[in-house]
Amino acid sequence: MTDYRQMWTDLDMDLETHDQLCAVLPAAFGDTYLSQENRPENMAFYDFVVSEIHGVRPAELIELQKEGGKVFGTFCVFVPDEVVVACGGAVTGLCGGSQFWVPEGEKVLPSDMCPLVKASLGAHFGKTCPYFSVADMYVGETTCDGKKKAYEILGADKRTYVMDMPQMKRPKDIEKWTGEIADFAHEVESVTGRALTPEALGAAIRLINDKRRALARVFEARKAEGCIPISGKDALLMMQIAFFDDPARCAEMANKLADELEQRIVDGVSVFPAGTKRILVTGTPLAIPNWKLHHIIETSGAAVVCEEMCTGTRYFENLVDESADTLEGQFQALSERYMKNNCACFTPNPGRIADVVRMAREYHVDGVIDANLKFCTLYDVEKPSLAAALEAEGIPCLALETDYTDNDAEQLRTRVGAFVEMLGE
Amino acid sequence: MTDYRQMWTDLDMDLETHDQLCAVLPAAFGDTYLSQENRPENMAFYDFVVSEIHGVRPAELIELQKEGGKVFGTFCVFVPDEVVVACGGAVTGLCGGSQFWVPEGEKVLPSDMCPLVKASLGAHFGKTCPYFSVADMYVGETTCDGKKKAYEILGADKRTYVMDMPQMKRPKDIEKWTGEIADFAHEVESVTGRALTPEALGAAIRLINDKRRALARVFEARKAEGCIPISGKDALLMMQIAFFDDPARCAEMANKLADELEQRIVDGVSVFPAGTKRILVTGTPLAIPNWKLHHIIETSGAAVVCEEMCTGTRYFENLVDESADTLEGQFQALSERYMKNNCACFTPNPGRIADVVRMAREYHVDGVIDANLKFCTLYDVEKPSLAAALEAEGIPCLALETDYTDNDAEQLRTRVGAFVEMLGE
Repeated sequence: MTDYRQMWTDLDMDLETHDQLCAVLPAAFGDTYLSQENRPENMAFYDFVVSEIHGVRPAELIELQKEGGKVFGTFCVFVPDEVVVACGGAVTGLCGGSQFWVPEGEKVLPSDMCPLVKASLGAHFGKTCPYFSVADMYVGETTCDGKKKAYEILGADKRTYVMDMPQMKRPKDIEKWTGEIADFAHEVESVTGRALTPEALGAAIRLINDKRRALARVFEARKAEGCIPISGKDALLMMQIAFFDDPARCAEMANKLADELEQRIVDGVSVFPAGTKRILVTGTPLAIPNWKLHHIIETSGAAVVCEEMCTGTRYFENLVDESADTLEGQFQALSERYMKNNCACFTPNPGRIADVVRMAREYHVDGVIDANLKFCTLYDVEKPSLAAALEAEGIPCLALETDYTDNDAEQLRTRVGAFVEMLGE
Repeated sequence: MTDYRQMWTDLDMDLETHDQLCAVLPAAFGDTYLSQENRPENMAFYDFVVSEIHGVRPAELIELQKEGGKVFGTFCVFVPDEVVVACGGAVTGLCGGSQFWVPEGEKVLPSDMCPLVKASLGAHFGKTCPYFSVADMYVGETTCDGKKKAYEILGADKRTYVMDMPQMKRPKDIEKWTGEIADFAHEVESVTGRALTPEALGAAIRLINDKRRALARVFEARKAEGCIPISGKDALLMMQIAFFDDPARCAEMANKLADELEQRIVDGVSVFPAGTKRILVTGTPLAIPNWKLHHIIETSGAAVVCEEMCTGTRYFENLVDESADTLEGQFQALSERYMKNNCACFTPNPGRIADVVRMAREYHVDGVIDANLKFCTLYDVEKPSLAAALEAEGIPCLALETDYTDNDAEQLRTRVGAFVEMLGE
């Protein structure tokens, strides 16, 4: 394993505290992932990335910066990566999936806020995440009260650009988002010092679409009936890493994994015994290394076959139309694609319910688990209407609320176990 | 006292439960308000309104409906009353200020949401608020996650129109709000069956401006040095009732009250002894009958002389420019005025901090209490930056969080008491 301590020092990270994180992650990953049997061979890449999660990719981003490229840290699937890539920049996800960062976040945020937002700010201010440290700037969006206001605190410490999400989906809102993308493009041009051209943006649109197609292939394989070629935990890991990786490599690796999974389906190779209950998980994002719920489900006699969430289908469903050849047309095509995302930040948001019902069919699921992070009002309020829609369709649904601590693990295990048992009756 | 039981029955209200509310309100009002000494004579009007809070005004609104007028129930100071008034409609505030309605709201909403939103939905679904019952429709806005999503639940039960608030304050956001007002105007025309004319809208703009000027006069009197002509509780009551009253009568009564207060200043009549500490309260709205914090402050040796909140200065500060004579120009003038509101829903929101600092000077306050309702992420996150700004200005600040229950009353009293004592040192 490469020693990244000098790099972390150069990034002005808090090495002592960061060491504590590095000390626990391998064991957590081992317990959760490496204990699985018959994993796809192509998961080796993702295992490697996790083993060097704070080293190998940050080192690449530093190389990019040495060549004059800029790194944009983002928090949300609404930020159009295409614009950054087209200006020679890189987009990276940011840390936010572990309780490790929460206490530091609670020093600057109220405790009764969602753990994802608290962990993010904790990772920044605690200087224990190289992705926060390496980013030249952050790009936020007004998708929820917590993030919207947290950017003010982050922005006082590092350059932060905020895009104003429309909260509805009328034609004029799509137009508004087009304008936000155009404004963001100006910001990216200014930060990178590179002018955006239709050629470069067109190439970036195709690149990110290729990444989406590749991720979608892996999910397509999860739809197979009578065979589960990959665990939910492994598919989730691929998605989590997709937020951090180089897009071309992400596509390449996802395609290799998809090749293997497709062969597994032909060969009838399943990682779960026949009759294992198939679960769709919907709700708030599961940022790396948040594997808690998937691990509980997959050690309770069920398998996760689909995630309807930002770290799931919303990240790759819907492609950007590649036919536009002017910036104006491309901004509009981007807006149309991104505004198809059925985030609970929109009102109303019937599309999410339709998506869950559709995917429950497509992925042949036996039940849906609607899980949201504590204090996420947006998803919490949608729970009863989603449950009603699923009941009308005869699809069993379990609503859960959790955070990053282990305090509720046993309770969750009991509830998930009872749900899975009920599915078998 | 008039018997409104037949009216409540006709409104399809739950009389039995509503009776429980009617049974406790007079005592609560008596303990909190009527125990005060030397109140302005013109508070008699407001006392009368409270004594018939669920009767006299709803009866007027029903009369309006009999004449073909429509009643619009609103939740927020961003909804432009002017447009409704210009189409012969009436705007009314809605119930949401008592714990009485919270349990019913928790049947349809998560418990870890702000009590104002829970109480509102509880009042609607429990059928214990005549303002909800009498309204022909509701008008919401996307100012916070809780309200935004709650409107979906309300909207399934009664016609609800939602305006999409921009979350920032760039020139294009003011333009966007202009468009939202224009769209709302179409909705109001459609619901009322009356075409909006520049003449009618101009008259309505002047009417609502007059109301703002009158309320501002009362607040102006609260700036007097060495004399506190009205208690904070009484001023708050005037503001709370302003959301429900006919705008012309509201202006008339506020002007009468202001006349009296101005005379009191000349005569040196104060409702608090000399040396009483002057407090500005900032934060989330205090909907009727939420008098808890004011009562604690004013029975702890201090007086509230200003409320920087929606049930305070934000409701009347800034007038709409009256010079436009086209609908387009009037919509823009409305947008410019409403977008001056420094609600914490905006990011960034430095204007609120500047307002609090400015008002702390204007109202000669000794200290600021920054109080927000539990689970209001927006105001909660602004607390540290507001505290830092006040500290830099040498203005003492106490941050509090509360809800509608009485559970924390003693704790609040202890903290407020210690704060007031500290101000005297």
